[in-house]
Amino acid sequence: MDLFKTNLLKTIGLSVVLSVASLAMFSCSDDNDSTGNGDGGDETTLTNVPKYVIFLIGDGMSTPQINVAEAALNEPEFKKAYEEQTGQPINLRSGTRAVGLGKMNIREFPIAGMANTHAEDRYITCSAAAATALATGYKTTINTIGMNGDRTRNLKTMAEMAKEKGMKVGIVSSVSIDHATPACFYAHTPDRNNFEEIGNQLLTSGFDYFGGGTVRWNKRTTLTNAAEYKAEAATKGYKFVDTKAEFNALNSESGKVIATLNLIGTGGYTGDSSAMPYVIDLDEQEEDNKISLADFTKKGFELLDNENGFFMMVESGKIDWACHANDVVTSTYDMIAFDEVIGAALDFYNEHPEETLIVITGDHECGGMTLGFAATDYETAFGLLKVQNISFMEFSMKVSQWAQQATPPTFEEALAEVTAAFGLVDEYTDAEKEPNYLEPTYELSDYECNLLRNAFKVSMEGRGSANILPEELKLYYGNYDPFTVTITHILNNKAGVEWATYEHTGTPVPVFAIGQGQDQFSGYYDNTDVAKKIISVAKLDEK
Amino acid sequence: MDLFKTNLLKTIGLSVVLSVASLAMFSCSDDNDSTGNGDGGDETTLTNVPKYVIFLIGDGMSTPQINVAEAALNEPEFKKAYEEQTGQPINLRSGTRAVGLGKMNIREFPIAGMANTHAEDRYITCSAAAATALATGYKTTINTIGMNGDRTRNLKTMAEMAKEKGMKVGIVSSVSIDHATPACFYAHTPDRNNFEEIGNQLLTSGFDYFGGGTVRWNKRTTLTNAAEYKAEAATKGYKFVDTKAEFNALNSESGKVIATLNLIGTGGYTGDSSAMPYVIDLDEQEEDNKISLADFTKKGFELLDNENGFFMMVESGKIDWACHANDVVTSTYDMIAFDEVIGAALDFYNEHPEETLIVITGDHECGGMTLGFAATDYETAFGLLKVQNISFMEFSMKVSQWAQQATPPTFEEALAEVTAAFGLVDEYTDAEKEPNYLEPTYELSDYECNLLRNAFKVSMEGRGSANILPEELKLYYGNYDPFTVTITHILNNKAGVEWATYEHTGTPVPVFAIGQGQDQFSGYYDNTDVAKKIISVAKLDEK
Repeated sequence: MDLFKTNLLKTIGLSVVLSVASLAMFSCSDDNDSTGNGDGGDETTLTNVPKYVIFLIGDGMSTPQINVAEAALNEPEFKKAYEEQTGQPINLRSGTRAVGLGKMNIREFPIAGMANTHAEDRYITCSAAAATALATGYKTTINTIGMNGDRTRNLKTMAEMAKEKGMKVGIVSSVSIDHATPACFYAHTPDRNNFEEIGNQLLTSGFDYFGGGTVRWNKRTTLTNAAEYKAEAATKGYKFVDTKAEFNALNSESGKVIATLNLIGTGGYTGDSSAMPYVIDLDEQEEDNKISLADFTKKGFELLDNENGFFMMVESGKIDWACHANDVVTSTYDMIAFDEVIGAALDFYNEHPEETLIVITGDHECGGMTLGFAATDYETAFGLLKVQNISFMEFSMKVSQWAQQATPPTFEEALAEVTAAFGLVDEYTDAEKEPNYLEPTYELSDYECNLLRNAFKVSMEGRGSANILPEELKLYYGNYDPFTVTITHILNNKAGVEWATYEHTGTPVPVFAIGQGQDQFSGYYDNTDVAKKIISVAKLDEK
Repeated sequence: MDLFKTNLLKTIGLSVVLSVASLAMFSCSDDNDSTGNGDGGDETTLTNVPKYVIFLIGDGMSTPQINVAEAALNEPEFKKAYEEQTGQPINLRSGTRAVGLGKMNIREFPIAGMANTHAEDRYITCSAAAATALATGYKTTINTIGMNGDRTRNLKTMAEMAKEKGMKVGIVSSVSIDHATPACFYAHTPDRNNFEEIGNQLLTSGFDYFGGGTVRWNKRTTLTNAAEYKAEAATKGYKFVDTKAEFNALNSESGKVIATLNLIGTGGYTGDSSAMPYVIDLDEQEEDNKISLADFTKKGFELLDNENGFFMMVESGKIDWACHANDVVTSTYDMIAFDEVIGAALDFYNEHPEETLIVITGDHECGGMTLGFAATDYETAFGLLKVQNISFMEFSMKVSQWAQQATPPTFEEALAEVTAAFGLVDEYTDAEKEPNYLEPTYELSDYECNLLRNAFKVSMEGRGSANILPEELKLYYGNYDPFTVTITHILNNKAGVEWATYEHTGTPVPVFAIGQGQDQFSGYYDNTDVAKKIISVAKLDEK
């Protein structure tokens, strides 16, 4: 028993923590005649061993990502833009807690704790070390997948434990299902970039359902190799589906399934490392190619349900990628789509409240996103995020094409595209007055216009053309397209959102829980404890 | 009953939340023969109405402030510097949770929840609106103290409720005890700057103990007025002490007390708005003037203990002020001193576990402090924070004096002072190599040296001399001394810490709880709920 539990037992004595030891709890009062006996009577108890364990991971998600999404959704025009883009109505929940602000699904969870995320060898973690901690309960080193810190020993994952126990297992991700976070639940390899090994281990995992992005299999991206992997999957007993029609036809009789719309090299939405597209770019996809992360999740519930229960991990992986690029709108669209997954999981919970545990966390924060910016003082203007209709990535590709043209566009021509895609305009409605950050406006100040003009020059002429120090190049643009990242910086700043870095941060992550054993997840602990608590509550390590 | 509780009751059924309704809880198991009956048997129960309610508020404190302090304390040389500065040994707690990192006292709390902080009329709150929410359970508008949003109605505070119930009440703050946060527990006025009104309401509150910084009483800072306030306090039955000897002599027979070392205009440590000095500047105080916030807290326990119990609020107010100035070392020293307060409260709890509730929260985050910076990628170097031995404020005063000299120092002379006070040096140990952020170093790069040189010029010649846009002036320096804030920016960045703003942010705050009713504080809710939960658990609104 770890110190945390020992301490709790010492200071609290009886009550919730004893649920770990499987004690029955009794309640008695004048107001409430029924007594729960731990076997599930009229009342839902906290002490059942959950039959269904649903683990939802927002990559790069901590409180700022959640709060910005909720604040933006409370702007009617932003909400409408999201709904039109995705065809998905958003029903915010109301309540006294938010006092005037509608709430996302994630805010419905009764338990919220916090976890530190550092890796064995670095304070600021990576997704491999973080997901190994979340999947196994052990710290490891940067880039290591499912092995101990010196990479000499495989660590058993909670998904493998569940499988051994006879539960069905599903792994879903909006990025490729061989990416660090999902891989940490079924693979063991010293380097997250060993895609061939990870792809092979996926096929020998025996897990029942993989959904979302596809596999890279050592970055072989030719159609031949795609077919080869598909054939390989068949020999291991997997049905590999890659059309929406096949996906819709899947049912509990389908056997082991790998479901993706994004087969290696077929030219589907494979552009971005075999991940599902950013939600904000979904309208460029054909209708046949649209399956949301919530759809993949709900299909999992359908495929995995059985008398022995299931374990399912769902990752929203591109909240992180958009935060690396400091693009708050793209990140927020993916965050809201993740909240739809959370809504689907809550629906499942409400059907099986006495048999389900849902835990949500992030693997780490990304970008140092802050709801506040030096020039906007105490003001925010989340409504300004409503116009943006393209991800930083799609826009960067456009800029990259401009740079390759014999006659690239002028700055003024480029700015017209910026206005259409992000709303920013170089035009003061009041010619007397410099626009200032304290009043919400799309109008660029002279300062902002200079930033944008300089960045455009660097994008068109190359980084070597920038008359600034290498350190400044790094600070201003990271490794991103200078013009695009400057646009998102300016727009985000005008909305009152600032970034600290292009990488992950050491900010702790929230942990939300609902269902059987939920009380275990209160408190402030280490990310390894998240795994230990899930394994303990669901008795995954007991046969 | 608010939605949160309703929801909890619905989903959980029995258990912890019913403690609000005063239900007895029974536990029965093979491992544990004792049954708690709610009256405090062998086991500590969660269902007692706490006799002692201790509410600890870190102004400007959210998770980054806590995490940086803990990370810095795990650097032996930083820890040693703090201990030498304060004469206070720090005993980090070890445990599996932190996996290798020693833990501060705040990490010992079994329950951690989260709260949103926005004000009625602005997403990013101020201390007045936030503390009104925390003290009364109601949202209000910016700058309003203890009144509703349109300032037409006084809101009863939990401290007033406790007083009416016959409990003793204490209010302690490291800033002036008429500052927004403490004032919100005893005063009702439309504007936080109504110091005379606040000072008068303090004296008619009937509360038993005020400690920490002093009162401003309408900014009358002459010795005459100080004596006048002291006399006024005496007519209201308060013993007003302002020396350490008098403070030490206070005991449970002392009656109503106002204890400060900082009487208006006496030239004590009054320089900074009548607040206690920054902990990092304590060594400049005479020994007779050193009373720590933990000392004020422990004295409160001694003075307030009585058969009817007490309510005590302790605020650490200058974590916030240092974060406004983007000075992580000064903020961290005050954060660690606040953790000593938390340690003292835990000691009290351990003596009265069945009668005590301790709740800790922040009123809002400040500065958008992030453990991560664009140029340091994934690296951090908290050890670099060990040299700084002066607050931004004291250093700014020095710079201001330089600027007033007939012959101000040269940049090189100023840099020698920077090296002594912060560690930064303009000297590369390897002349072949530009220093880079990825290796911890005090050596300034060309980029950093340019920033510092420009800032020095602006500090010496005035803001009008800066050949940059007003927007840049604001972004680079806020309202702070350009040279000083550039020094702390560079040092903080080198350590891997970045700032987003000079003001508060919308980042949620953690809520920690231990003791009777602790489970109420799990979850993600609004800051008004923190007050509602404390009032409900301690039945402060019941006679």
